[in-house]
Amino acid sequence: MEASRPLDALNAAKGKRVIVELKNGNQLLGNLKAFDIHINVVLENAEERSNGETKRKLGVVFIRGDTIIMISPE
Amino acid sequence: MEASRPLDALNAAKGKRVIVELKNGNQLLGNLKAFDIHINVVLENAEERSNGETKRKLGVVFIRGDTIIMISPE
Amino acid sequence: MEASRPLDALNAAKGKRVIVELKNGNQLLGNLKAFDIHINVVLENAEERSNGETKRKLGVVFIRGDTIIMISPE
Amino acid sequence: MEASRPLDALNAAKGKRVIVELKNGNQLLGNLKAFDIHINVVLENAEERSNGETKRKLGVVFIRGDTIIMISPE
Amino acid sequence: MEASRPLDALNAAKGKRVIVELKNGNQLLGNLKAFDIHINVVLENAEERSNGETKRKLGVVFIRGDTIIMISPE
Amino acid sequence: MEASRPLDALNAAKGKRVIVELKNGNQLLGNLKAFDIHINVVLENAEERSNGETKRKLGVVFIRGDTIIMISPE
Amino acid sequence: MEASRPLDALNAAKGKRVIVELKNGNQLLGNLKAFDIHINVVLENAEERSNGETKRKLGVVFIRGDTIIMISPE
Repeated sequence: MEASRPLDALNAAKGKRVIVELKNGNQLLGNLKAFDIHINVVLENAEERSNGETKRKLGVVFIRGDTIIMISPE
Repeated sequence: MEASRPLDALNAAKGKRVIVELKNGNQLLGNLKAFDIHINVVLENAEERSNGETKRKLGVVFIRGDTIIMISPE
Repeated sequence: MEASRPLDALNAAKGKRVIVELKNGNQLLGNLKAFDIHINVVLENAEERSNGETKRKLGVVFIRGDTIIMISPE
Repeated sequence: MEASRPLDALNAAKGKRVIVELKNGNQLLGNLKAFDIHINVVLENAEERSNGETKRKLGVVFIRGDTIIMISPE
Repeated sequence: MEASRPLDALNAAKGKRVIVELKNGNQLLGNLKAFDIHINVVLENAEERSNGETKRKLGVVFIRGDTIIMISPE
Repeated sequence: MEASRPLDALNAAKGKRVIVELKNGNQLLGNLKAFDIHINVVLENAEERSNGETKRKLGVVFIRGDTIIMISPE
Repeated sequence: MEASRPLDALNAAKGKRVIVELKNGNQLLGNLKAFDIHINVVLENAEERSNGETKRKLGVVFIRGDTIIMISPE
């Protein structure tokens, strides 16, 4: 990865499986479909995890950027 | 879904039944009627759920975007 | 309601009795007199409810938009 | 009151005694002297109340808008 | 005080001893030296109080506006 | 370091190992790859620490700026 | 100090030892190297204090402005 701006790193992760960590302590896993400058994110084939356990399958999910702590390729 | 921007995913969900998860831990279910760039959302035939149980029927409801964690088609 | 933008739904509720749910868990009921793009809201003949009970009569009340979770016609 | 915008309602309350409810749960009572679009507010002859009891007399007080839940003529 | 805008009230308090109430519940007392539109404030001869007791002398202190609930001349 | 603006200090830390302290109390360690004016940050070879213990390896991680308290070269 | 704007006070403190109080209750001490209009701050020779005790030495540290309550020359 030769990203010089933070959003380049998200661009490089498009289509890949990522972990999105939320401010409420939960995690969402899914394929990174889209994001914007507010870090609003869309995941596909998503599932929600809490304390390491899958809580539910979500399919497509839109996540509001201001609830996100971090995003990391799995 | 071939969305390249997050709001495209919301657009694709218009008219469909979605789950809106709020920062206070509650969930709203309803038909996605409208949204804007702040992620202010209007649901129709909405109901509020808490811990998996329907708490009340709301009909039409306007939700302020900054209270939303995520939106997912049911 | 044929609203295509969220604020259209608020416009359609003008003059009607609405429930405004606040981030602190309280509810305000009243006739929707005015709102703006920040979702600042003015209610008339308002009363405050907490846990389903009327706490007090407020008459006219100005509510700052960033304290609002949702607004729904009664 | 024939206000069509929320700030018109505050304008109509200028000089009158109002209750300002704060996000920390306290209330300020005073004569509405001034406000701006951020809902920054100045009260005169103000007093602070908590749980219905007067805690202290404040005279003139400037209140930062983002700490305010609602404003209502007494 | 004939202020018609909230910042006029702060201007009238310049050089005078004011109480600044913070969102964390603490109070700062000092001479109002400067403020700006964000309500960033500088106090001189400042001291910090908690539960009515002086905790420490601070001399000059810069306070970030978004931590302030209210400002009142002593 | 002769930085005269805060972002110059981040620029000087590019490629170096830094500690990023988050508002939720956790720490992320990694090589500073990129940042922007919102203080959105990308770390490489990152790991998450809590109470001084490594919780997990993260590889590349994008951190949303508004969750960050401070950033310091190790 | 003849500052008429809040940032003038920070400018006067440049190079001097300051205490930065954070919203999480911790304190950072260090030499004020740089700041900007968001009150993002860089300290040199910094150390972190909690309840009056030095917790750790940090060297250079970048602090995000929105986590700061106040800044005061030691």
